[in-house]
Amino acid sequence: MKGLLFIVSAPAGTGKTTLVSMLVEEFSNVTRSISYTTRQKRPDEVDGKDYFFIGQEEFQKRAQKGEFLEYAEVFDNYYGTSKKFVEEKRSLGKHVVLVIDTQGAMKLRDYEDAIFIFVRPPSMDEQRKRLQKRHTESSDAIEKRLSWAQDELQVAKDYDYQVINDDLKVAYEVLKSIIIAEEHRTCHFRQFSTKKG
Amino acid sequence: MKGLLFIVSAPAGTGKTTLVSMLVEEFSNVTRSISYTTRQKRPDEVDGKDYFFIGQEEFQKRAQKGEFLEYAEVFDNYYGTSKKFVEEKRSLGKHVVLVIDTQGAMKLRDYEDAIFIFVRPPSMDEQRKRLQKRHTESSDAIEKRLSWAQDELQVAKDYDYQVINDDLKVAYEVLKSIIIAEEHRTCHFRQFSTKKG
Repeated sequence: MKGLLFIVSAPAGTGKTTLVSMLVEEFSNVTRSISYTTRQKRPDEVDGKDYFFIGQEEFQKRAQKGEFLEYAEVFDNYYGTSKKFVEEKRSLGKHVVLVIDTQGAMKLRDYEDAIFIFVRPPSMDEQRKRLQKRHTESSDAIEKRLSWAQDELQVAKDYDYQVINDDLKVAYEVLKSIIIAEEHRTCHFRQFSTKKG
Repeated sequence: MKGLLFIVSAPAGTGKTTLVSMLVEEFSNVTRSISYTTRQKRPDEVDGKDYFFIGQEEFQKRAQKGEFLEYAEVFDNYYGTSKKFVEEKRSLGKHVVLVIDTQGAMKLRDYEDAIFIFVRPPSMDEQRKRLQKRHTESSDAIEKRLSWAQDELQVAKDYDYQVINDDLKVAYEVLKSIIIAEEHRTCHFRQFSTKKG
């Protein structure tokens, strides 16, 4: 059975990375797609694990060759999802989770048989606190991110599911439930279609 | 927020009653719809808890008044779902689970914004064993039920979800996940539509 494709988007500081890491850790059949990006590596990030960090020139070459399922420019940096990575994992029966922004996600809306999950922050204030706690960005950059986050909430309605990350444990339970439920939706339940009870 | 409506069908002996009881026990916001029936009460059943046991005449009177959301005849007995029961619970924010046969379920297919779940037995042999273990029916009645169950599997594809009850614990986990996931589907996520992040 071919694995499913889950698209997860969330405003920055919503905890999407933590949530998806928990998922990958618990489920051996769930894997996170590793994107290509031209942005600077943060100190805590690992090349080939968090992202594949590449130069602008290489990114454009790959984009021209059609190697990306989707790619987007965010804050002057490019992010792209490797078509090959996703399809290889799915054909091995793994569910692939793409953590991408709404711009990239909406490009896949009509194209893929994907399941779209939007993770919502409990409130803008809470989100500001979280970003400040991360200490990786200036106050200006945080406000820029928050205003962008506000815009992102407008497209949340185009996603299949809404998960509020107020309490991490509760949010994780919901995310996990979505994965399990979708595995049992009739339209994805292919391994059974030729079996008789 | 109005509660959701879940329709659960399964061939006899599949464990649907156990599964739904577990759900009602764990979730205070989930309730099982109690059907009206004209069939004989089994020794272990309680009137007003398992079913409302009524006579043929009263059943017909209620049916004529349009009091049933759906009703069906199964093995010369009538089973009906009370419209009032379901709507009252839902308007209190409770999710209502209807455990009904495929015939009744399909009557609600286009009518209601319900979520349809089909519970599948692991195999016909396993199902025969379970029915025999229950000691409530003759061998003839069991074979009649099994042949009916085979027919019911044909309509399984019209349900939104497929849950295989091979291992009760696993099946329950799936059922529970479906309830939680559906609560977070964008189309049901009404309490959020007027809120801003």
